[in-house]
Amino acid sequence: MVNIILKDGTKKEYDKGTSVLEVAQNLSSGLARVACAGKIDGELVDLRIPLNDDCNLEILTFEDDGGKWAFRHTGAHILAQAVKNLYPDVKLAIGPAIQTGFYYDFDIDKHFTEEDLANIEDEMKKIVKAKYDIETFTLSKEEALKLMADEPYKIELINDLPEGEIIRFYKQGDFVDLCAGPHLLNTKAFEAFKLLSTAGAYWKGSEKNKMLCRIYGTAFSKKADLKAYLERIEEAKKRDHRKLGKELELFVIMDEGPGFPFFLPKGMLLKNNLIEYWRELHQKAGYKEISTPIILNKELWLTSGHWEHYRENMYTTIIDEMDFAVKPMNCPGCMLVYKSKLHSYKDLPLRMGELGLVHRHELSGALHGLMRVRNFTQDDAHIFMLPNQIKAEIENIMKLIDEVYNAFGFKYRVEISTKPEDSIGEESVWETATQSLIDAMTELGYDYKINEGDGAFYGPKIDFKLEDSLGRTWQCGTIQLDFQLPERFELEYIGSDGEKHRPVMIHRVVFGSIERFIGIITEHFAGAFPTWLAPVAVKVLPISDKYAEYANNVADQLNEKGIRAEIDYRTEKIGYKIREARMERVPYIVVVGLEEQETNTVSVRSRQKGEEGSFPLNEFINRVESEINTRFNYHTNITNEFSK
Amino acid sequence: MVNIILKDGTKKEYDKGTSVLEVAQNLSSGLARVACAGKIDGELVDLRIPLNDDCNLEILTFEDDGGKWAFRHTGAHILAQAVKNLYPDVKLAIGPAIQTGFYYDFDIDKHFTEEDLANIEDEMKKIVKAKYDIETFTLSKEEALKLMADEPYKIELINDLPEGEIIRFYKQGDFVDLCAGPHLLNTKAFEAFKLLSTAGAYWKGSEKNKMLCRIYGTAFSKKADLKAYLERIEEAKKRDHRKLGKELELFVIMDEGPGFPFFLPKGMLLKNNLIEYWRELHQKAGYKEISTPIILNKELWLTSGHWEHYRENMYTTIIDEMDFAVKPMNCPGCMLVYKSKLHSYKDLPLRMGELGLVHRHELSGALHGLMRVRNFTQDDAHIFMLPNQIKAEIENIMKLIDEVYNAFGFKYRVEISTKPEDSIGEESVWETATQSLIDAMTELGYDYKINEGDGAFYGPKIDFKLEDSLGRTWQCGTIQLDFQLPERFELEYIGSDGEKHRPVMIHRVVFGSIERFIGIITEHFAGAFPTWLAPVAVKVLPISDKYAEYANNVADQLNEKGIRAEIDYRTEKIGYKIREARMERVPYIVVVGLEEQETNTVSVRSRQKGEEGSFPLNEFINRVESEINTRFNYHTNITNEFSK
Repeated sequence: MVNIILKDGTKKEYDKGTSVLEVAQNLSSGLARVACAGKIDGELVDLRIPLNDDCNLEILTFEDDGGKWAFRHTGAHILAQAVKNLYPDVKLAIGPAIQTGFYYDFDIDKHFTEEDLANIEDEMKKIVKAKYDIETFTLSKEEALKLMADEPYKIELINDLPEGEIIRFYKQGDFVDLCAGPHLLNTKAFEAFKLLSTAGAYWKGSEKNKMLCRIYGTAFSKKADLKAYLERIEEAKKRDHRKLGKELELFVIMDEGPGFPFFLPKGMLLKNNLIEYWRELHQKAGYKEISTPIILNKELWLTSGHWEHYRENMYTTIIDEMDFAVKPMNCPGCMLVYKSKLHSYKDLPLRMGELGLVHRHELSGALHGLMRVRNFTQDDAHIFMLPNQIKAEIENIMKLIDEVYNAFGFKYRVEISTKPEDSIGEESVWETATQSLIDAMTELGYDYKINEGDGAFYGPKIDFKLEDSLGRTWQCGTIQLDFQLPERFELEYIGSDGEKHRPVMIHRVVFGSIERFIGIITEHFAGAFPTWLAPVAVKVLPISDKYAEYANNVADQLNEKGIRAEIDYRTEKIGYKIREARMERVPYIVVVGLEEQETNTVSVRSRQKGEEGSFPLNEFINRVESEINTRFNYHTNITNEFSK
Repeated sequence: MVNIILKDGTKKEYDKGTSVLEVAQNLSSGLARVACAGKIDGELVDLRIPLNDDCNLEILTFEDDGGKWAFRHTGAHILAQAVKNLYPDVKLAIGPAIQTGFYYDFDIDKHFTEEDLANIEDEMKKIVKAKYDIETFTLSKEEALKLMADEPYKIELINDLPEGEIIRFYKQGDFVDLCAGPHLLNTKAFEAFKLLSTAGAYWKGSEKNKMLCRIYGTAFSKKADLKAYLERIEEAKKRDHRKLGKELELFVIMDEGPGFPFFLPKGMLLKNNLIEYWRELHQKAGYKEISTPIILNKELWLTSGHWEHYRENMYTTIIDEMDFAVKPMNCPGCMLVYKSKLHSYKDLPLRMGELGLVHRHELSGALHGLMRVRNFTQDDAHIFMLPNQIKAEIENIMKLIDEVYNAFGFKYRVEISTKPEDSIGEESVWETATQSLIDAMTELGYDYKINEGDGAFYGPKIDFKLEDSLGRTWQCGTIQLDFQLPERFELEYIGSDGEKHRPVMIHRVVFGSIERFIGIITEHFAGAFPTWLAPVAVKVLPISDKYAEYANNVADQLNEKGIRAEIDYRTEKIGYKIREARMERVPYIVVVGLEEQETNTVSVRSRQKGEEGSFPLNEFINRVESEINTRFNYHTNITNEFSK
């Protein structure tokens, strides 16, 4: 007999040699039906594996990462088998499961077309329907090389393995692949899948090697989940901020500035709205804004450590025969500002914010719209404190971040990263700081995940992961303690004892990069920004030239109240003008003609509700004004016409 | 007899050989008393010069540039004579009149102290009192070299003159100097003068030559004018924006960024206030704001011509093995934005503004606070037009500039610069454009000066010269037509004829450089910024801790209305806190204690009027709010306590 402990702590006894699947069956036939793999003492295994010793056991379904991995990895094999059936000369490289599904790399003298993918899918369906048992066996290196003699990439992989390693294969029907597993036990469960795209990929990821053909696919345990996922991909494509950025004329990226976005008037209004919001919040929260130069000398970057550790990502120039760098971070400039004045403990905490434009090199292949750029505006702040102020400051920042993310309707998760093995700073300061983070989180009632040892070598940190309206996650805000820079810059304050002390420092960002945040919210809102954020809140459409003056009057009154209004004076048909304004995703369209002019009203068409009829101008202005002032965000559940 | 025509057109007849001075005496004995020099057919001459031919004649007094020049140049000679008297071994270099007075460069083995300057002034007064006649004579080169044998710098100057040139000298008492004149006829009129400072200056301005000692002085025809001028210099020293910038904590400049200012929180509030004002005005005036990258590739600067003509002032860097430059101007980026879209004549005029941070190299010796820096924010705009829109656009810009300068209480002059000899662009476009500038100016009722031939080779322009509260002038705004960049970038619009046409373009700035403008207004207002502009509008001073909560309440209500309020919570005596707030030049100080708390009032001390007594909080808020909203500028006549 063997004693096993299940994940929920239950202890069970089984005959020695009972398989994982049999345990699942014993627990519940429903569980056995959806089981994908097992985990014995933390190690992923096939369901077929017998239990020979006492152990901790988990039965994994598609809902677990390990189960999902086994399920989708099986899909990669089915894909390879199908391609091999259709193109017998193809040479197989590798095919893992990934976050969003799976892929397989093939060496083949053709490009797969959409039609090819459809044929391959059909072939895969046949393999699924054939309900092949998936078997596994091991060979010695010699035998393995013999079996794979026709597959040069497998030969290379086998030769890369350490001498004496037992080499595992999986087999379904007449298809055999070199593979460590685990896998499902039969191909039949793999019903809900879809091939998505093809791409070139270098063998082993190196451009020195041959370019192979990669086919991407995805798979789910339920057809409904696959359908929802495919819809989300479709929706994400429609919302791609590069596409919307062009359609809504927010920004452009040109060859003359690769990775350096140009903001167009509408994008600039959006950016300025964000910045205005940031300033308002930070002023209330007691921050002081500074601005430090874009270019600073080598001495500074030597002191900060960037010259030694970050130089390959920095753009450098020469002034008066001396080295200078374009700043990749705002911190060193802020340190100089702190040092430019004597500080007393009475001045602390001192919160210095900077909307600083930083430049960091990225490989040209990695550039992606506003999401990955070579220059961006960090909404930085550095807070200088006494050690006993850390907790209160963390709480203040958390509240501020919470307010911001809520204003955009983002859900978010919090992760704390603690002291890594290699680190600087006194043990006691690490302890105080880390405990302060945890206490702040607990007091504010946050659920948080701790990533043990994942902090930077110079201090613990908190990361915020946003979830957007498509369920995707984005890392934006961080709160980072820093025990290093205050040392390097020899920052000081005069304590109540009249002596000099070193302050504790926090770096923090809320948006992270304003540019990237604009990319994220463009996709999150599908370009239909809430009224307080929209580049244009109200579009005024006179039905003919005769009402241009009244339209001016309406727009002036709106602008007077800080409501951005634009007039479409063109002599186009009103239906056409409405259609265009709708495509611009303007929150409010107001049409004005004779009746409106005579009664001082506007005919309102809101993005949210469509035609709403006529309203007195004052009433309409009050409504929009209050929506802006309260930063009303009716898009949290994304129900607008542009979200489907 | 000779016929002369005076400046006012009057024709007169005199005996041949009548001197300029005799003509002046004939016209009025008062005029003769203040005459400094003459101008015969445009050429400056001594008053002694006889009229031998028919000519146009002007009698110049100190009020005329030429008269002032002769007067002050005589001062330079008196200075040299005095130094020679006191230090017989001194060698004389050169000594001209300049805009603000005169100087003389001496080769002498000492530094002149304040005391030395006082002694030299005394010696000069003796020379004035001696009422030396100032004579003039000419010599051949050989004779001149002989006369100046002991003065090596004069020898070098004489040797530099063309062969055969007749060489003129001036003599007063036993002092002789090589000089082309003109001068006064006697030293006696030179009564109102003052030596101001000393400085090192290279012979002929080249650092390869010996460093000489320069003494600066100034002089006026009336003692009252000298006194007023000296007071203005004193006042300007007190208002030096570098001094105030430090005292008011507006900005700092550090070794790590020579010429790259760091803005401190108070300076940043000021800068943001300016920018907010700029945005509000420009939005109303139909401008659209864009933002283009700081770094752009060499291709672009080749197209714009900057790589060829401006490269030594640009900071360059290398990205992916290609040349890039940090932008010295915003124009090329804006051209790309224009080109990123197809334009119809219906979209014109298109006004694109950019608050762009530009970097331009300046010699380190030329850097001066915020006035001369290596990076600055240009409040740029480019306007793309049809040729027949030029006049209306110029009028729009003039109105906008007028509004801005008035908001700061600046007087200003307008100068138009027309087509130079070397120029590009069609004759007819130059004519239309120049006429449009003049017509706009005339229609708006401006007095303007025309600088014939002083325009850029690529278009005519209008310059604005501000006069500040100390009577100093600053060049800030410009409106520049540009026929070149639209060509170089091949800009186009589709005309009503369906064909492609090239738009006309204007560059314009209002502030010029935001940083420099902050320097100018800091000196103009002596740091006592009007309420709408001040970094902090209201300082709230609780008389003790007990009233901190009411102080918070007051400050919150002010901030709520967009009135920047700060609280001084410190437990210092109220008198001390008031003194400090006054030194910060805050427009309003409000003191709150028991009485104020109980009656919901504030005790007001305004910068303008001092103690004003108690006011209901609402009333005070309304007053400050209306002052901010109307951008009330009570400093036009600079009567505040910091202006004296």
